This record gives sequence, structure tokens and C-alpha cells, in this order.
Amino acid sequence: MAIHNVMEDVIRDVLLTNKDQLHLTCSCERCLNDIMAIALNNSPARYIVEEKYSPYVRANHEADRQGATNILSTVAKAAAIVSNDPRCPQTTEKIE
Amino acid sequence: MAIHNVMEDVIRDVLLTNKDQLHLTCSCERCLNDIMAIALNNSPARYIVEEKYSPYVRANHEADRQGATNILSTVAKAAAIVSNDPRCPQTTEKIE
Repeated sequence: MAIHNVMEDVIRDVLLTNKDQLHLTCSCERCLNDIMAIALNNSPARYIVEEKYSPYVRANHEADRQGATNILSTVAKAAAIVSNDPRCPQTTEKIE
Repeated sequence: MAIHNVMEDVIRDVLLTNKDQLHLTCSCERCLNDIMAIALNNSPARYIVEEKYSPYVRANHEADRQGATNILSTVAKAAAIVSNDPRCPQTTEKIE
């Protein structure tokens, strides 16, 4: 079944655009995935059935100033959670 | 980035298991996708980073009686919405 959560694209954009301002202790793929998962679990889902509608839903999000601010704050909180307790092999090896 | 919303699997299972009791006017792939998207947009997301955790999150959902009931009612509501206003080509052609 070809369904897709447009919030994955919206949150990935916000994360990658603001990555350098988020003071991440680690920006490996695992840590970025963990941040994405936590942010998505704290955001409303926006599933669509036809890929061709993705740009409209995304544009809708980007145009909504308050919505964009909420997403950035959700991503920043997720980044802080992961930075405080990274699960990736590199960081856990350093800690042991 | 390899993240996955386990609710997609949970809702797909509930939809396919109960498909015959949902009185669908059409059960083509497009209509089932539309039901999935509406149900997922009305359910909390459960993203995980590592596929190997999927069975635990799914089992957690299936064991939670109230959670399972909520999901079934969300799927039934989505099924009613799509059955009242199907968007798939087969049904829209019949209506024209």
C-alpha cells in the first residue's frame, strides 16, 4: 500500500536545515534517525495516498508560521533528548 | 534514514482482519489506502529506528485491550468516511 507521512519530509527538512544550530553531541545517521523518530512521535501525522499531493501538504506546512515554529521546537526538544542520551555505537563506546 | 511508523503495520492488520465486517462499498487498493491514511492521521504515531523492535511495539499494542479497541473504532470511522465518498476511479466512473 502506497501511503506516505508528509511530516517525515517536513521534519527531515527542518532537522537538516537547522542541524548546525541544534548543538548536537553527535550527528551520525543513528542519532539523526533517533531525533526524527522522537519528533515524529510528538507531531500530528499527515498521511497522503498520492505522492503528487506531497508538495501541497508540505507548502501548507511551510506557509503556516505557527506550525513551522511548533515543528522547530519539537525538533529542538528531540535533539536535546538524543544529545543528552545518545544511543549510537560511537558514543556508547566512548562512555564505557 | 531508516525510520518506520509501527502504527502502519498495526492499522493495516486491523483493517485487513476486519475488512469483511466493515461493509466497504469498495475494497480496491486505492480505497484501502485512503482508509489507512485517514486512520493513521487520527492515531498517535509510533516511529522506531530499528526494525528489530517492531514486534515488541506491535505486541504492546495488541496486548492493550483498550488501545486495540480504539484502533478498531478509528479504522471503522475511516472506513465509513471512504465508503460514503470513495475517490477511486472505479466508483467515480460509476457515479458520473
